[in-house]
Amino acid sequence: MSNSFGKLFRITSFGESHGKSIGVIIDGCPAGLVIREEFIISELRRRRPGQSVITTQRKEEDIPEIQSGVMDGITTGTPICILIKNTNIKSKDYDHLADKFRPSHADYTYHQKYGIRDHRGGGRSSARETANWVAAGAIAKMLLEKYNISIQAFVSAVGNISVNKPYTELDLSLTDSNIVRCPDPEVSGEMESYIKDTRKQGDTVGGIISCVIKNTPVGLGEPVFNKLSAALANAMMSINAVKGFEYGSGFEGTKMRGSEHNDPFIIKKGQIRTDSNYSGGIQGGISNGEDIYFRIAFKPVATIMMEQQSVNLKGEPVKLEGKGRHDPCVVPRAVPIVEAMASLVLADFVLMSQTTKLDALSD
Amino acid sequence: MSNSFGKLFRITSFGESHGKSIGVIIDGCPAGLVIREEFIISELRRRRPGQSVITTQRKEEDIPEIQSGVMDGITTGTPICILIKNTNIKSKDYDHLADKFRPSHADYTYHQKYGIRDHRGGGRSSARETANWVAAGAIAKMLLEKYNISIQAFVSAVGNISVNKPYTELDLSLTDSNIVRCPDPEVSGEMESYIKDTRKQGDTVGGIISCVIKNTPVGLGEPVFNKLSAALANAMMSINAVKGFEYGSGFEGTKMRGSEHNDPFIIKKGQIRTDSNYSGGIQGGISNGEDIYFRIAFKPVATIMMEQQSVNLKGEPVKLEGKGRHDPCVVPRAVPIVEAMASLVLADFVLMSQTTKLDALSD
Amino acid sequence: MSNSFGKLFRITSFGESHGKSIGVIIDGCPAGLVIREEFIISELRRRRPGQSVITTQRKEEDIPEIQSGVMDGITTGTPICILIKNTNIKSKDYDHLADKFRPSHADYTYHQKYGIRDHRGGGRSSARETANWVAAGAIAKMLLEKYNISIQAFVSAVGNISVNKPYTELDLSLTDSNIVRCPDPEVSGEMESYIKDTRKQGDTVGGIISCVIKNTPVGLGEPVFNKLSAALANAMMSINAVKGFEYGSGFEGTKMRGSEHNDPFIIKKGQIRTDSNYSGGIQGGISNGEDIYFRIAFKPVATIMMEQQSVNLKGEPVKLEGKGRHDPCVVPRAVPIVEAMASLVLADFVLMSQTTKLDALSD
Amino acid sequence: MSNSFGKLFRITSFGESHGKSIGVIIDGCPAGLVIREEFIISELRRRRPGQSVITTQRKEEDIPEIQSGVMDGITTGTPICILIKNTNIKSKDYDHLADKFRPSHADYTYHQKYGIRDHRGGGRSSARETANWVAAGAIAKMLLEKYNISIQAFVSAVGNISVNKPYTELDLSLTDSNIVRCPDPEVSGEMESYIKDTRKQGDTVGGIISCVIKNTPVGLGEPVFNKLSAALANAMMSINAVKGFEYGSGFEGTKMRGSEHNDPFIIKKGQIRTDSNYSGGIQGGISNGEDIYFRIAFKPVATIMMEQQSVNLKGEPVKLEGKGRHDPCVVPRAVPIVEAMASLVLADFVLMSQTTKLDALSD
Repeated sequence: MSNSFGKLFRITSFGESHGKSIGVIIDGCPAGLVIREEFIISELRRRRPGQSVITTQRKEEDIPEIQSGVMDGITTGTPICILIKNTNIKSKDYDHLADKFRPSHADYTYHQKYGIRDHRGGGRSSARETANWVAAGAIAKMLLEKYNISIQAFVSAVGNISVNKPYTELDLSLTDSNIVRCPDPEVSGEMESYIKDTRKQGDTVGGIISCVIKNTPVGLGEPVFNKLSAALANAMMSINAVKGFEYGSGFEGTKMRGSEHNDPFIIKKGQIRTDSNYSGGIQGGISNGEDIYFRIAFKPVATIMMEQQSVNLKGEPVKLEGKGRHDPCVVPRAVPIVEAMASLVLADFVLMSQTTKLDALSD
Repeated sequence: MSNSFGKLFRITSFGESHGKSIGVIIDGCPAGLVIREEFIISELRRRRPGQSVITTQRKEEDIPEIQSGVMDGITTGTPICILIKNTNIKSKDYDHLADKFRPSHADYTYHQKYGIRDHRGGGRSSARETANWVAAGAIAKMLLEKYNISIQAFVSAVGNISVNKPYTELDLSLTDSNIVRCPDPEVSGEMESYIKDTRKQGDTVGGIISCVIKNTPVGLGEPVFNKLSAALANAMMSINAVKGFEYGSGFEGTKMRGSEHNDPFIIKKGQIRTDSNYSGGIQGGISNGEDIYFRIAFKPVATIMMEQQSVNLKGEPVKLEGKGRHDPCVVPRAVPIVEAMASLVLADFVLMSQTTKLDALSD
Repeated sequence: MSNSFGKLFRITSFGESHGKSIGVIIDGCPAGLVIREEFIISELRRRRPGQSVITTQRKEEDIPEIQSGVMDGITTGTPICILIKNTNIKSKDYDHLADKFRPSHADYTYHQKYGIRDHRGGGRSSARETANWVAAGAIAKMLLEKYNISIQAFVSAVGNISVNKPYTELDLSLTDSNIVRCPDPEVSGEMESYIKDTRKQGDTVGGIISCVIKNTPVGLGEPVFNKLSAALANAMMSINAVKGFEYGSGFEGTKMRGSEHNDPFIIKKGQIRTDSNYSGGIQGGISNGEDIYFRIAFKPVATIMMEQQSVNLKGEPVKLEGKGRHDPCVVPRAVPIVEAMASLVLADFVLMSQTTKLDALSD
Repeated sequence: MSNSFGKLFRITSFGESHGKSIGVIIDGCPAGLVIREEFIISELRRRRPGQSVITTQRKEEDIPEIQSGVMDGITTGTPICILIKNTNIKSKDYDHLADKFRPSHADYTYHQKYGIRDHRGGGRSSARETANWVAAGAIAKMLLEKYNISIQAFVSAVGNISVNKPYTELDLSLTDSNIVRCPDPEVSGEMESYIKDTRKQGDTVGGIISCVIKNTPVGLGEPVFNKLSAALANAMMSINAVKGFEYGSGFEGTKMRGSEHNDPFIIKKGQIRTDSNYSGGIQGGISNGEDIYFRIAFKPVATIMMEQQSVNLKGEPVKLEGKGRHDPCVVPRAVPIVEAMASLVLADFVLMSQTTKLDALSD
């Protein structure tokens, strides 16, 4: 009930970090779409652990194996299942956690909710699940290419270090040019150093990812529930460690006056456009054709290499040692995850928009 | 497809601000719940226009009429329909808007999406829809009483004026003691003056609402999609004019280290609790029994009493005069809306939690 | 959760026979559809009680009042709510039933399920609900006109009296020419007499309705679940008193050999067609462009004007007198209900078919 | 969108007969259920091709591999994925079909719907999909054991040969004692001979499966849509080759009078029961605690070993030779499929019934 996402372009996923495999079924992808497997692989590589010196050194191969729904490289309209085998499993690493609750993890809540918990690698609450999303998101991105919709996320803050320019002044093509995935050369180096220092101290740090969606057709989004903004928020808040979402003017916009904040309509190259874009490309929950942009807050990773206070299953106080292989900062690897979730939302809304107007129904 | 909200405790609503009535069907409310109609009425009064000098002076009676699902004051398990007639309709007020797009409203996006648009009072995009939510939310609140779950929202910022204490130092019972609905007596007066000044200038201003949920049982929320945090974000982002959502440490938490941010588990009165609550009562998407708290950003109301630049249906530049009866600041009236949407989410999750464990299934 | 039907063209209904009103919200109807209110009224008249000497003599006006979603006679894409007030309520008629369970009604199962039951007129289990479906079905029929899809149901059996010709030899335009709604003049009179005789004896009788759908485009229906045949079965089995569904060759087809039953493909007027149609217009769950035809079994109405054996709330044996105003045979009035439910299915599947192929997606 | 089934106990499946694997995700199974893998295997053996001389001689191993959701033999509440690899693939067998439409198969409708079609072994329309259902149904059956609910299907007709006793006079434990799966020793032999003869002639034949569900608690089923009867019909009509469904008195009941057909309530061993059971255990869509029984019509298998008339992709008439390995009669192997689908429905409704009454909600 809680492992499906989307309405028409809909994914259903499964898998624990220490089971045989994880995987995702993509249901509702239109027939006739050309699938480039190498693109799925390259997207997964952007998310993969061990990709750089500032990520966890766990090695996961993350080879996507398409089981169904694609024939001779073209979608057939039937569900696409992508499997990813779990290979680099060190269950032993987690033995010391079997009866203890790690602070600010899902250990305690899972245990209370289900009465049973797969403690190895976080079980179902592991961010390994996001590999499923990235694989499915790659399919969604290939669908969105038909509309020239582009989705680009990037790191805009690590701890106190943040990009201070509007995204319109950045060259987003530089995002993957550095291991932090920050397109601002002035701060990316500083961020990298900060993450390295944090790791040396056995600590972790949070950050912010920004995302820009270009070329969205006017009219995506549903007017009351399933607003495009609400769907994006829902998608982003599904990502592990996310604590906040804002789009357009966001929290800063609360301080503005209506006379400043309103985006005047103008005519640009014969098109109805807005002169400013505090709306963030969405008005009344529906895309207006301007750039959609939003920001997502990630808390610091909960697994730290320090001793911590906790309790065990019996309700006794225990000390928890820091062990295992983890990320000092989640945002560099979360960039493709944000893009994937945004892609899934957009693909779904593109399909939903097909039945809005009588005139536009096909025969 | 986009006018339903929730899975098991599920509402479906209809209505434009200038049709005969608006209404909501609540499907899935358990049988046997005592319904106090006066409570629905009192919740609607908190949302009603014309309730104070700092809200719009439109008069809407907002009398909820229960059509079904309740017999002798008790729910029967069948769908509850609540109708609210539209009475104070001045369609003439909107005649000058029939062919123009108001900046930062949904006029343009609706028109492009549907090819047709009810321009009177915003049609379906009008915040009048939120009366449906408040009525349905009142039913949800009565269900949550069984669990002693309390949901309290309040205004924590208007423009640049904000409450500077943590919510734990506020007396939330003071929220409705002033027309701004801010429980901090030190700033509520200032907020009121600021809203009045803004109105005099024909302008509007944004603000922030905070919300606290107490006594949530451990285990509400689904682990992957439908995280409690994601569902609350989705609910809040459905409210008109909302631009952002954060819970627990939120955007500020991105600047923290894991060693500071982690909430150590402790034993308090024989219960497993956390010593701090940066998690905001939700870990891994699931409630952990601590207070759930979150903040919602509202942009300034788009309707201002000033001349604005826009375009018309033909794509010609036009001037738009400020007319009609509108709110200078939306947050005081949005407090019950936030509570209603949070109640709908919680009621839904309480029902969803009924089938999680084999042992807990009833015969 | 159980009061909605359909995925994209989706209805949600409410109402007990003795509440203030019943009603239905139609969500997902495309914008731009011309709505003829008089057509909704005329469809409701075909279902209305008291329409002839062989139906119940209860008088229900059944005036549909559109609350929303239609402006100047055209759908706006927002949810359409249609209300029907309950006027001719004689709750007293049901007082003797408050503590007794009528045999083969839903009284006992409702009471056990919910612990509370609206005994007046059957409450939510009353066939009055089907007025909602007929109103919504009328909207669906108007949508299907765009595709020239026609849906015609008729009575093909009353008790042992049945039409013995294939539907292709009947003039379906004669269906409403007699009060039984049987287009075969050779048996309709006999059926009428039989129903009258049955009523005189205080008894009731069952019957069969057949339905033919013409001009369905090839490709409606989903391949695994949501097969068009399964969706039609689900829709028909939702109608009160229905005990069976078969399409194409149905139960008789089980006796045939594959070599007889297979429908050879041929070319007719340049089109791929089948030479016979044992498939009933659906192959692999998907429409093949041939006529879709199916049959629905209705049991005899449970309310009879005779004394019956039953038990009361306390579990004591009681005698039940026959009282009230009821139909001796449900099928004449059920014809428009069958058509309505079939229309809702078809409208939903037409919308679902819009996103199947990449090439056919609109921009 | 069409590859999921169920609401709370929900399966999503994928796979073509000639892809790498097929599989099913079971979402919503409560935590704490003991899973016996050997039971899943034994259920799959009952469905497996090549199990006897009267089924297709294709060999499919059908080894279920649990990927997730089960730890140390107990469900964890997370989604259970079961994979079944495709091993015995002879794609060459289907080469001659690549450009031809087999009569009464889904070839033509798929091709028209999607514009592309996996012709090998029927692709997604292959009955191989039902292995997924049987695997998932085995999980559902284990859940239903908690309620002592038993589901037993059996062959009640093959062609013109049918069991002439009511199910209450049969010993259903004999069902699997013969290869036809008919518990009536008087006709099972005759059925077997008839199937063998039919195969010798290169032909196929249809049949009927009956199913009995015992010990259902009172109160399963939703009152308006999602009636238990409608859900069972929907489930059964999803099975390949099914043309009809009836429960209780079914089509025969249409000939009865209400005075005969009504099931009088009586007190038996202190319980409210009915004296007869024409209702088939379901009243008003809700189980009444009596046996639920229903019958399902299967058409003759479309693949015959005879030359047939058809057309090709270019719309030219072609002759189609009979080739490949197929079943002469589908009903013996369909018995476990019927049970599986019924189990999925019942498991879903057991979960749905958990939130009906306020008093019964757990804390």
